[in-house]
Amino acid sequence: MISVQKALQLVLNEAKSFWNENVLLENALGKILAEDIKADRNYPPFNRATMDGYAFLSTDVTEKGISEFSVAGELFAGYQFDKKVNTGECIKIMTGSAAPAGLDCIVQVELSTEIGNKIKFSGEIKPWKNIAREGEDCKKDNIILKEGIKLSPVEIGALAALGKKTIRVKSSPKVAILSTGDELVPVGEEVTPYQIRDSNAYALQAFFQSSGIQVTRREIVSDSPDSLKKVLGEIVDFDIVVLSGGVSMGAADYVPAALLSVGIEKVFHKIKLKPGKPLWFGKGSSGGVFFGLPGNPLSCQVCFKLFIEPYVRKCFGLDNQNLQSYPVLQERVKKVQLDEYFPVKLDNSQLEILQFNGSGDVTSALGSTGIALHPIGKGDVMIGDELIYVPWQFL
Amino acid sequence: MISVQKALQLVLNEAKSFWNENVLLENALGKILAEDIKADRNYPPFNRATMDGYAFLSTDVTEKGISEFSVAGELFAGYQFDKKVNTGECIKIMTGSAAPAGLDCIVQVELSTEIGNKIKFSGEIKPWKNIAREGEDCKKDNIILKEGIKLSPVEIGALAALGKKTIRVKSSPKVAILSTGDELVPVGEEVTPYQIRDSNAYALQAFFQSSGIQVTRREIVSDSPDSLKKVLGEIVDFDIVVLSGGVSMGAADYVPAALLSVGIEKVFHKIKLKPGKPLWFGKGSSGGVFFGLPGNPLSCQVCFKLFIEPYVRKCFGLDNQNLQSYPVLQERVKKVQLDEYFPVKLDNSQLEILQFNGSGDVTSALGSTGIALHPIGKGDVMIGDELIYVPWQFL
Repeated sequence: MISVQKALQLVLNEAKSFWNENVLLENALGKILAEDIKADRNYPPFNRATMDGYAFLSTDVTEKGISEFSVAGELFAGYQFDKKVNTGECIKIMTGSAAPAGLDCIVQVELSTEIGNKIKFSGEIKPWKNIAREGEDCKKDNIILKEGIKLSPVEIGALAALGKKTIRVKSSPKVAILSTGDELVPVGEEVTPYQIRDSNAYALQAFFQSSGIQVTRREIVSDSPDSLKKVLGEIVDFDIVVLSGGVSMGAADYVPAALLSVGIEKVFHKIKLKPGKPLWFGKGSSGGVFFGLPGNPLSCQVCFKLFIEPYVRKCFGLDNQNLQSYPVLQERVKKVQLDEYFPVKLDNSQLEILQFNGSGDVTSALGSTGIALHPIGKGDVMIGDELIYVPWQFL
Repeated sequence: MISVQKALQLVLNEAKSFWNENVLLENALGKILAEDIKADRNYPPFNRATMDGYAFLSTDVTEKGISEFSVAGELFAGYQFDKKVNTGECIKIMTGSAAPAGLDCIVQVELSTEIGNKIKFSGEIKPWKNIAREGEDCKKDNIILKEGIKLSPVEIGALAALGKKTIRVKSSPKVAILSTGDELVPVGEEVTPYQIRDSNAYALQAFFQSSGIQVTRREIVSDSPDSLKKVLGEIVDFDIVVLSGGVSMGAADYVPAALLSVGIEKVFHKIKLKPGKPLWFGKGSSGGVFFGLPGNPLSCQVCFKLFIEPYVRKCFGLDNQNLQSYPVLQERVKKVQLDEYFPVKLDNSQLEILQFNGSGDVTSALGSTGIALHPIGKGDVMIGDELIYVPWQFL
């Protein structure tokens, strides 16, 4: 059995770049940018009025001593002022307008006084007052967003400003989720007292969704080598295949053999982790990865967080998250010499260890914000000990 | 002018419950549960084998002193064992199976030895060893998830286990985003040197998306009282209408008057906030709310975070986020006697103040993880001072 750390290393070694695709900007939230974005023009694209007021040439006041101006016109945002503005003239200008060439000062409405048909200004008069100069935020052809960042609303706004109606992003990998087990019944169908519902597929799919990935195929496969082999044969070229159940030592645990039989190369089987010890991991000849997860709900979720999510992040070119440690509020007895993870609730920078009835408990992780690690080498955990915390959800 | 705090209070006063709707479980990630969920049966629903091994009655060993068992059959998960198991007999049993009535102990394969056609067990023998008992996780009809929680992958998994193919969740509000201004051009169309693109609508839409809300209508409206009035007339019954631009003091700022003209009641206009001072807020007769945001990109984003997001959270019944304070790495001069917000990058529990060229800078918030508050009453900020931090993205 290898350590969790070694296993993660072996999983990350198989990371590859997914394809790129073009998407409409309104569908790009949370996607990973797959191109550098250059400014298409200077920003601001013109000397922009930042106030509603009057625009004139500052030296008319500071050098020529003019104190009253006549209004030569009015300019609204979005329009060009095409008359000449002479010495001693100003124009009424609205926020967001392009200050006409030759004018370098705007005094806001509040500091401007009408005296007959003339305007007087108060406050300091200086060049570029209340004007954002062309190119002062960003020059044409400067790279303003680099390939590889995850797009938040702030970046979506900037991309819109730059006129990117469609952008190139990393595509989603092709993902299949197979739930194995004759005891499994699709959610929504009748269940006998000896059967359970296929809940892992839903949890795993939701985890993929929260990483921005839509699952291509989701299926229950019965515990028979032939059915497993048939379905696996249809998805050997997928990017990520996640199976749950059937990887342990029982007579119905056909998953490892079935994976080998369709040409998947085993990288490891069994790791020093609880829950999740029976984890199987292998790679296909076309670069896909195959995770055989144990069937218990919490085991599945822990394996997703510890292996599949970091794999996906690496493929997307995202850094792995820096995990933080927090003090725990309860003691915890060391149960087995494995890396043990269990549901916790992070509140006020402290970890509350939640009631937890084994990895098969369908309700065990409810109310938890993540899982904490009781490491393999450590004895019992005392109140206040700091444990590594893995939040269910990353940003 | 009212304070930001008072303004937020007035906005939150208008919060209302949105409708509820049924969605398929696979589409429920991130939605707010609108019903209490009860366990449909006991969990586990049967005495579940937690190991692959052999099941027998523990007192056969501890009281009757039997040390070798004959194998009376085999049981796989999902099936019922319908033969009687006699004293001195065991059955081979797979993880996840329902232990037959009368059997209360499972010894795992690894501790079981075949001797001829008999099986010997080692390790401690006791009742309910390696069996998760029916109902020990959760009893039928117990409430396991309460209305009002936001559904993460963990809850999606539990709902699937309970057979909830569809669930009742809070519906999205009906949202319209109107960008006002003759200078605005749709993203993707030709732009003259005096025009800019409609970037606010994209940023606002992405913010709504990240709160799980799809925007129903998005439109550019020209700076004319009639066009504004016409469009507003068509959406007076929407739940949330967000306008950007046109709320200041300029001659083209028709938004406040247009809102009043279609029967929207003004709650406040102008607040002690930078950027965001001209914010207009009102309510419609059918319970909708109307936000008139300033047109600068950062102003829009700050107003969304400070007012619209808290409003949406309250309507969904979510707690408002506890904002945390962090020490800053740079000094900052107090510029105006307003609550000032500016882009920062939270890293290693410290706030880096980012270069920021005014709220009109389309690139200003890039690279930031959120905004920090330089409060109205405070003088200059010194290195190490703790400032309230609002992350762009909440969980």
